[in-house]
Amino acid sequence: MSHGDHESGRIALDVMGGDFAPTSNLSGALRALGGDDGLDPGRMVLVGNEDAIRGGLEELGGDPGFVIRHASEVIDMHEKPGQALRAKPDSSIAVCVGSIKAGQAGALVSMGNTGAVVGASTLGLGTLSGVRRPGIAVTLELTGHPVTLLDMGANIAPKPAHLVHYGTMGSVLARDCLGVREPRVGLLNIGEETSKGTDLLREAHGLLTESRLDFVGNVEGGDIFKGVCDVVVTDGFTGNVVLKLLEDFAGFMLRLVMEELQGHGGAQWGPEALAKVRRNIDYSEYGGALLLGVAGIVVIGHGRSDENAVSNALRLAARALDAGVNDDIVRGLETASEPA
Amino acid sequence: MSHGDHESGRIALDVMGGDFAPTSNLSGALRALGGDDGLDPGRMVLVGNEDAIRGGLEELGGDPGFVIRHASEVIDMHEKPGQALRAKPDSSIAVCVGSIKAGQAGALVSMGNTGAVVGASTLGLGTLSGVRRPGIAVTLELTGHPVTLLDMGANIAPKPAHLVHYGTMGSVLARDCLGVREPRVGLLNIGEETSKGTDLLREAHGLLTESRLDFVGNVEGGDIFKGVCDVVVTDGFTGNVVLKLLEDFAGFMLRLVMEELQGHGGAQWGPEALAKVRRNIDYSEYGGALLLGVAGIVVIGHGRSDENAVSNALRLAARALDAGVNDDIVRGLETASEPA
Repeated sequence: MSHGDHESGRIALDVMGGDFAPTSNLSGALRALGGDDGLDPGRMVLVGNEDAIRGGLEELGGDPGFVIRHASEVIDMHEKPGQALRAKPDSSIAVCVGSIKAGQAGALVSMGNTGAVVGASTLGLGTLSGVRRPGIAVTLELTGHPVTLLDMGANIAPKPAHLVHYGTMGSVLARDCLGVREPRVGLLNIGEETSKGTDLLREAHGLLTESRLDFVGNVEGGDIFKGVCDVVVTDGFTGNVVLKLLEDFAGFMLRLVMEELQGHGGAQWGPEALAKVRRNIDYSEYGGALLLGVAGIVVIGHGRSDENAVSNALRLAARALDAGVNDDIVRGLETASEPA
Repeated sequence: MSHGDHESGRIALDVMGGDFAPTSNLSGALRALGGDDGLDPGRMVLVGNEDAIRGGLEELGGDPGFVIRHASEVIDMHEKPGQALRAKPDSSIAVCVGSIKAGQAGALVSMGNTGAVVGASTLGLGTLSGVRRPGIAVTLELTGHPVTLLDMGANIAPKPAHLVHYGTMGSVLARDCLGVREPRVGLLNIGEETSKGTDLLREAHGLLTESRLDFVGNVEGGDIFKGVCDVVVTDGFTGNVVLKLLEDFAGFMLRLVMEELQGHGGAQWGPEALAKVRRNIDYSEYGGALLLGVAGIVVIGHGRSDENAVSNALRLAARALDAGVNDDIVRGLETASEPA
């Protein structure tokens, strides 16, 4: 099913969000037009300062026919989300959310203030039927196939049932957008045994075992790199720690490696070889993080997203819309908790 | 203060523990005799099957004068700790703990079943005055200076006060054994702001701020690699996830890097260059994990510890004994919670 011809199939892009805004977002939108799965320009709603958008597009060779929607305010990357949303009702983030609410778009993409995007989306769009708490999902390609982890920080103190919802939402994402036919779900824990972990995890383990999900049981941190499952479920605190650790540890390791390569002529070819390694653990390759469970497709990218990351995020939003991820989540939640 | 001449200054080595036991442990004990901080053989109590120990030492060139203590049973790496300890009262682990209890040793080193070592030590030795829950500390050298993380899994559901105890215990370790004069303590969290994280962390943040520790506030996963503090405090669940993730992620990254190096003649020099990188994140370089807070020095190594790791663990145990780490922990806990 394609929503491409309807307003609800449009993707609102927060042009003002991110460290390299607005240029990176505008270039990203232009880049998303290309390739086999290129998007129609009329499918993208560019949200932000209209002058900046028109001027920026002019500099990049002209407007191919994007929908443009003015937003007079910008929420800074480091503003406190709740406060900023209250103080700036016409921020580009709020206008993106408003577009979905008004049925003028079905998805939004923002590289801006993550807390503000999560807050505005959750409050503005509400949760899908059956979902109690949204979760942030990221996908990494570590062992030649994608692994989706959630929650990466939307909900730091979930209840056992929320973790089951994450399992369902992650499975739908893997099936609909990542080509994984029968997603296997693992529960991030500190040992394989059923008895391991906190009360939260022991209860979640029981619920997941009883669910219709393909639950493979507890997995440990390192299993993420071993291909034992396609979806890894965890609480938002642990998930956020893990995600930040992976990002920074990768950078740290690669710096150490680069130093070692210097003596072997690596100054020339090292950066390129290591960039390839870095891409493996860069979740913007899969379009960024999806806030799953809200009534709309919400893609959140890194503040430091470049043109390529923005383009990937727009394509991910389009895939999620076209596949009807949210309808599938609602259906999945209706059946997932029925005993298998 | 040196305990070297007294039985309480001896170190009981679990010769039967670890994937390469008993050989790796015996070679490690021999290796610990060498170097500037070499240990006296009479300071080491080799615990395990006496025939295996004597035979093994013979093969390695003879017994330089170790104390040998027979233990008739061995707890396997994968046995359930509680069950195994009950079923095998004369295991090498139990005999090591018994040696400390009887005043015939002040420390134990084991590369065996971690759960069994933690359980036997905690129950057999009891906790130090002022300590409610022991914590596992590991030290990594990531940015040219050591960073100690705890708890790495002894206590998966700590209370706020326990995290303050970890801060004190980690600071004592850093000061006594790692040459850090004024250890800075960070609290692992998902953001710098005081308001971040779970109730546990917000309460711990308050207690740490009021304590006499040099508390630098919340740190994020990646800060471990940035030298912002010397001691990172976290609950045992998060700590265990982080530790396993770091270990496996490092291996994963280095495999990816090695593949990239193949095309640049890296087959020859790559392994050596990367081994150097690997050592940076290998906590056995600092002697393994210390179970802090029990009435005895307990060093737990990786199951896959080699001769070098065993030797490092023995030296760490000796340093901790000689520095009077446990006396300093008791003193530290008496004063740490007094307002600064």
